[in-house]
Amino acid sequence: MREEFQADLNEVSRLLVTMAEAVRAALRKATSALLTADLKAAESVIERDIEIDAIYQQVETKVADTIARQAPVASDLRMVITALHISADLERMGDLAEHVAKTAQRRHPSPAVPAELRPVFKGMSEVADQMAAKIADLLGKPDAEQAAALESADDAMDELERQLFKVLLDDDWPYGAETAIDGALLGRFYERYADHAVNIGEQLVFLVTGQPVDGQS
Amino acid sequence: MREEFQADLNEVSRLLVTMAEAVRAALRKATSALLTADLKAAESVIERDIEIDAIYQQVETKVADTIARQAPVASDLRMVITALHISADLERMGDLAEHVAKTAQRRHPSPAVPAELRPVFKGMSEVADQMAAKIADLLGKPDAEQAAALESADDAMDELERQLFKVLLDDDWPYGAETAIDGALLGRFYERYADHAVNIGEQLVFLVTGQPVDGQS
Repeated sequence: MREEFQADLNEVSRLLVTMAEAVRAALRKATSALLTADLKAAESVIERDIEIDAIYQQVETKVADTIARQAPVASDLRMVITALHISADLERMGDLAEHVAKTAQRRHPSPAVPAELRPVFKGMSEVADQMAAKIADLLGKPDAEQAAALESADDAMDELERQLFKVLLDDDWPYGAETAIDGALLGRFYERYADHAVNIGEQLVFLVTGQPVDGQS
Repeated sequence: MREEFQADLNEVSRLLVTMAEAVRAALRKATSALLTADLKAAESVIERDIEIDAIYQQVETKVADTIARQAPVASDLRMVITALHISADLERMGDLAEHVAKTAQRRHPSPAVPAELRPVFKGMSEVADQMAAKIADLLGKPDAEQAAALESADDAMDELERQLFKVLLDDDWPYGAETAIDGALLGRFYERYADHAVNIGEQLVFLVTGQPVDGQS
């Protein structure tokens, strides 16, 4: 029974790793669509979000199947429930990548982001990409210390968001309200993506240490 | 066993109703803080978000306890897992109410919303309030038709968001980028609150009809 349970858990983990890699690829491509006004890339991210949703459903089915067949209790049960939370966060990260792509699509053929904002979005996308990579890695081998390091990456994201708003709110901002709003919403999409990555890190810490998780922020 | 399981489910439902009522009250108060620049109301919403997070933890604990003791399978198991999803959506609705309150707090003593945008935010808050009320109601007695009606309320929210952006993006917008950005983000908070309400409606439909739920959008 124990071996079967472990095999089920391994399969859930593999699905989560696939999902983490998919949401990582989605945001990379969405960022490229955003920064180079690449309509095809944007459309591809939007079309492929259903693949991420499909893995989300697979995780859910596999977890329900595991609970029903193995009747796990205590920490085993917590582990499978944690997998549900992680997949919900990953699914949402996929949606946020899709929102970035939709912004690029809506403004095409104009670039959604003026030249002076490109460095900050490039920075945000790099932080987000490292976080997604770390998650895919940690899902394979959970490590509380490494998972907690996601929080400092999130601090870097918050700092980039402050820089972004400093530019958007400058008295000399020359691009009007629409571009300011797009910039603020895009900043929020990257920042939320990072927040979900931090949530996943907390879930992983919980898996490893048994310490309770704070409410999502 | 069956009676015990039903009693456990009833307790989970009661917790979810309490949570729905709490997130409804939070957004009402946050809206009032926003539209009347009421700092105390804003602070109260922010402080009390931990109460919503605490109920979220209680749902999680109660669900794990129910699964461990009753070992539900098939549709019974789906029902308890659905409760987890609903509580996660409610928890996020609480966070969004808190975001509205924080915007009011940050701009105090100035109003965050100029006079001509107040009607649209009043409209958004009324739609959101009706949706939260409907959810509290449906958690007591699930009804697929009523739950599906949440989608038309969401259409009303989307229409209000379009009206909001029409004002924000008008060439004659006189309030500068910061107020435009606040307006766009606030609009998004209400719209996301409604999206989570729709998700909950879909979960309820799933509970009643057994039809699969789409990925969250």
